[in-house]
Amino acid sequence: MKKHNFSAGPCVLPQEVMKKASEAILNFNGLDLSLIEISHRSKDAIEVMETARSLAIELLGLEGKGYKALFLQGGASLQFLMVAYNLLEKKAAYLNTGTWSSKAIKEAKIMGEVVEVASSKDANFNYIPKSYSIPEDADYFHITSNNTIFGTQIKEFPDTGIPMACDMSSDIFSRQLDFSKFDLIYAGAQKNMGPSGTTLVVIREDILGKVSRTIPSMLDYKAHLDKDSMFNTPPVFAVYVSMLTLQWLKDLGGIPAIEKLNREKAALVYGEIDRNPLFKGFAAVEDRSPMNATFNLVNEAHKDTFDTLWKEAGINNLNGHRSVGGYRASMYNALSVESAKVLVEVMQQLEKKVG
Amino acid sequence: MKKHNFSAGPCVLPQEVMKKASEAILNFNGLDLSLIEISHRSKDAIEVMETARSLAIELLGLEGKGYKALFLQGGASLQFLMVAYNLLEKKAAYLNTGTWSSKAIKEAKIMGEVVEVASSKDANFNYIPKSYSIPEDADYFHITSNNTIFGTQIKEFPDTGIPMACDMSSDIFSRQLDFSKFDLIYAGAQKNMGPSGTTLVVIREDILGKVSRTIPSMLDYKAHLDKDSMFNTPPVFAVYVSMLTLQWLKDLGGIPAIEKLNREKAALVYGEIDRNPLFKGFAAVEDRSPMNATFNLVNEAHKDTFDTLWKEAGINNLNGHRSVGGYRASMYNALSVESAKVLVEVMQQLEKKVG
Repeated sequence: MKKHNFSAGPCVLPQEVMKKASEAILNFNGLDLSLIEISHRSKDAIEVMETARSLAIELLGLEGKGYKALFLQGGASLQFLMVAYNLLEKKAAYLNTGTWSSKAIKEAKIMGEVVEVASSKDANFNYIPKSYSIPEDADYFHITSNNTIFGTQIKEFPDTGIPMACDMSSDIFSRQLDFSKFDLIYAGAQKNMGPSGTTLVVIREDILGKVSRTIPSMLDYKAHLDKDSMFNTPPVFAVYVSMLTLQWLKDLGGIPAIEKLNREKAALVYGEIDRNPLFKGFAAVEDRSPMNATFNLVNEAHKDTFDTLWKEAGINNLNGHRSVGGYRASMYNALSVESAKVLVEVMQQLEKKVG
Repeated sequence: MKKHNFSAGPCVLPQEVMKKASEAILNFNGLDLSLIEISHRSKDAIEVMETARSLAIELLGLEGKGYKALFLQGGASLQFLMVAYNLLEKKAAYLNTGTWSSKAIKEAKIMGEVVEVASSKDANFNYIPKSYSIPEDADYFHITSNNTIFGTQIKEFPDTGIPMACDMSSDIFSRQLDFSKFDLIYAGAQKNMGPSGTTLVVIREDILGKVSRTIPSMLDYKAHLDKDSMFNTPPVFAVYVSMLTLQWLKDLGGIPAIEKLNREKAALVYGEIDRNPLFKGFAAVEDRSPMNATFNLVNEAHKDTFDTLWKEAGINNLNGHRSVGGYRASMYNALSVESAKVLVEVMQQLEKKVG
């Protein structure tokens, strides 16, 4: 039985991507060699990297707008440091909307002054702060578009007048946005793009070269750009799976098509959270993330019964993060509408059983 | 036809590892989930990480000797920086035996003074410098055990009296050594261990905590050690394939068994290089690497004929690095003795044809 995988990341990927990735491990492109045993300097490996890079730019609608894509290692966690290493000369502004924003701020403080323009920590990050001002003299503004742990998402991004860097790890490629509002976007692959092990960085080259410190090669965006994302041996398998997933998304109709499906899944699950008297949502309604729905039981006494129900239905990984408790339904791009319906059904089954 | 893969890395891995990795992409551990869609915090993913870490320590004979293993991201290139970030307070000593040593030195210089104790750059790194003295007041000594590009290998390691860090990317797990001579060993997986995308770091914790600078979290060995190599989402697939390869090596009889096979392959190929009047070896004979045999045609006019011969024999990637030219036969652990014999045969065929 195929599982309904609501894992928060690494997470569900399209079945056809899994099939192609599995085949490539045995024999890639008919070379009689595995994908993971060919040189990263071979024609076939370079083509994977270049296709993945250009698909990312194309799907974000950033062709011809001065952006380049990199597939690096180290996750969003290394980007927390790289953003500051490359851009922070004196002062940077950060919006604090959760655990990952807080970690980004921690690393940036090693490089210079950080102004936290607003924070929703007062309410365990269950909402997105909306009125704040960004210092005009900051080197850049950093924002986290979707907060996986708390289930909140930023709907409107500010006009900053300074470079804007965005951690889009958990909602990139999920909704239409004017991506050219951002000067640097980064995203760990393991939500909407691929397996863990690579991180997409989309960057406007003209924001670089403005800090006075010496940047170590591996932390230097320019070094990676100059070598077409092959400064050192790239994580070929993770980039290949990302390429397959981006190709799948393009064939499906791109971001407009997936956004429609994501809205449908979110409407189903949030609809049931609001309708079913046994559950309550965690995040502020206007800030709810279509990617991660966080919710709790009104009465914790029903926990064992509910846990048994969803596990029996083939649902994987519905447990909430320890910071929030309760449940989290992560509904990334590759999760089917059918899986969302199965979750709604088990929530209704609980109501019938104990309501 | 299965290829004879002499690629310098990423490179050949055991066929049974490829088969298991391919299956795990479709259904891992009978979970009805792919290896690449499960949470890294799940029991099954943690078991992969822990098994890989303990197999590494066991195979190196370092159990109970105060060492821990990490599987990080960023390749050896990020280790060039991390070693210096974590250990270089005032001054470090480096032996320069090639391209990778030189890159390690470049990154270390950002963090402090670097004393190059010796270099073989004068002869395009075709030998290993042997008489040098290491400053007793250096924070550590850094050495590169095997030089992939030039085909040299260090046979004897100095007694230093200070911590010794070693880049073993291209010969770890290939030969018996007293690994407890080293305080820090690192190795990109993509030679003897797995696909690109993860780096093994084996470290004695007591060498840490001696520099005064603030170390960013992702560059801090202690942060990774404190979280059992799960400070952030690890590259699960690359660690899994590494685990399978280490298990394969253990089942084969560990390093003593593979060293025997590696010696056999090296004897075959170097024997032919020395016997066949059409070829000459590049590296100094006493410093030859069993991992990477570098050699050139005596007469470049035979290039097209030889290239046609080895390609027709199913040999993949025999071209030398641009710094050396000619040919490079990389004979990592998973390359079969049969493949080495095929190479010898085509070298002999060339002799018959044009000699």
